[in-house]
Amino acid sequence: MSLLVVGSVALDTLETPAGKVEDALGGAATYFAYAASFFTPVRMVGAVGDDFPSGVLADLEGRGVDIAGVDKLPGTTLRWSGRYHKELNVRDTLHLDLGVFGDYQPEIPASYRDSEYAFLANIDPALQARVLGQLNGPKLVGCDTMNHWIEGSRPVLDELLGRVDMLIVNDEEAELLTGDRNVVKAAAKILASGPKSVLIKRGEYGVIEFSANTIFAVPAYPLEEVIDPTGAGDCFAAGVMGELARSGDTSPAGLRRAIVYGSVMGSFVVEDFGPKRLQSLTREMIDERYRQFVSLTDVPA
Amino acid sequence: MSLLVVGSVALDTLETPAGKVEDALGGAATYFAYAASFFTPVRMVGAVGDDFPSGVLADLEGRGVDIAGVDKLPGTTLRWSGRYHKELNVRDTLHLDLGVFGDYQPEIPASYRDSEYAFLANIDPALQARVLGQLNGPKLVGCDTMNHWIEGSRPVLDELLGRVDMLIVNDEEAELLTGDRNVVKAAAKILASGPKSVLIKRGEYGVIEFSANTIFAVPAYPLEEVIDPTGAGDCFAAGVMGELARSGDTSPAGLRRAIVYGSVMGSFVVEDFGPKRLQSLTREMIDERYRQFVSLTDVPA
Repeated sequence: MSLLVVGSVALDTLETPAGKVEDALGGAATYFAYAASFFTPVRMVGAVGDDFPSGVLADLEGRGVDIAGVDKLPGTTLRWSGRYHKELNVRDTLHLDLGVFGDYQPEIPASYRDSEYAFLANIDPALQARVLGQLNGPKLVGCDTMNHWIEGSRPVLDELLGRVDMLIVNDEEAELLTGDRNVVKAAAKILASGPKSVLIKRGEYGVIEFSANTIFAVPAYPLEEVIDPTGAGDCFAAGVMGELARSGDTSPAGLRRAIVYGSVMGSFVVEDFGPKRLQSLTREMIDERYRQFVSLTDVPA
Repeated sequence: MSLLVVGSVALDTLETPAGKVEDALGGAATYFAYAASFFTPVRMVGAVGDDFPSGVLADLEGRGVDIAGVDKLPGTTLRWSGRYHKELNVRDTLHLDLGVFGDYQPEIPASYRDSEYAFLANIDPALQARVLGQLNGPKLVGCDTMNHWIEGSRPVLDELLGRVDMLIVNDEEAELLTGDRNVVKAAAKILASGPKSVLIKRGEYGVIEFSANTIFAVPAYPLEEVIDPTGAGDCFAAGVMGELARSGDTSPAGLRRAIVYGSVMGSFVVEDFGPKRLQSLTREMIDERYRQFVSLTDVPA
């Protein structure tokens, strides 16, 4: 079924202990679209400048991504440059130029309005709310956010949280949102604020999901080397939302399956710089790694 | 089957964000004996001073713990006092008095020599090796250690690692042992040094186990409150070794089951100060929490 994503499209300069790349394809919506396209047709909402490489949108279209909602605006594409610390769980933003995202006001194409699944990737919650308001009653809405919005746009974010079904954040963001470092207490507060489920990402330790009646925890795939963590969270969300949109199964078991597919996609993308690893991936490789997750986590009854 | 443990027996003064207790029962062998006694008869090796509360050893005996190997020596019992930081993953040792452990040289009773399972809890590797040398070909030997011995007694520890089947350490100790922060690389080095399996504890994130052909990861049980983390690692080891000794099943599936029982025991002990929670526990409560682990981790195929 149809899966809409709204979020940034960017050109990133990345420094990790494994090396450095300039003007790599980046942005949450980009990572999400590449990863989710293995599961279901994706409708992309975002903006690029005149400097955006022409081949990229064509490549995405070739993968079943609808780019009617990607505005080509006069000006420069969002550029981000960041450097990861040795342990990869901390990064410094060296430079940020919003470019065409500076005063971007998304207007989704009429053909997108009936999207049944939607993911509001990490951008200004006012824009997330704006896009959500243009949809005709989607079946399931997922949402990401970050410290910048939690600290700076709290009323808008709180209002938005009351309207989404699933929040996907990392452990630091969950603590910042709730004031609770304990993940059980933080999750309870988030569920009380609106979402029916919350997925808390814990980096190399995996993900823990809380709904009203169930808790599900899955470890991260053990990797010998992480080349570039950028986009791991977006690809995780893409696997989750992509599988939910593909199957239409939002039962607890369906959600668990989706979370593991999310973990699969997050584990692949970090194996190379930018979204490069996704470009050489096949559906068979994804399903093979899903089976490895089953084996990795199997607890005898 | 018979399970021997050698390790410290202590009186602890503990400060955690939840409160403070003085002269609580402590020591790795004590925690281990209490927790493992739910699975199999335990043979305890250690030393106490004249000041050790007389009721404790009787209580342990009542739980099927053989205390013939606990030497009552003139002098004081080992005393440790520690303070946990707010986040509970860091603690400071405020005071340590080795007491009768200062020049303790364990001599196991003849009745212990045929022990088929043995756990060398965290003490001087020279003492661990000494006890191991007194056993008549045990079936499976597990071993713990800590930064103090990794940094200060490396040759003795390395020699010992060549003689044990299973190493149980936390992630920081695995990194210190190998120089690798990446858990996959660290585990490979540890397996190359002798043990057939290594269990790496990751605190609130659970445990990951590596053997030659398999990796198993299990999250920690999500607790709303941790009262006192002391003994969590020893109780984890006790659940692992206790279940292995009970079942005699050292196959990959048997080891997985044991690791989950270890996680169960670690999750209980932190719910109260010292080993208090273990004293009110029943086998039914343990099996119920095992089932909760099955539900927590179940990935649909």
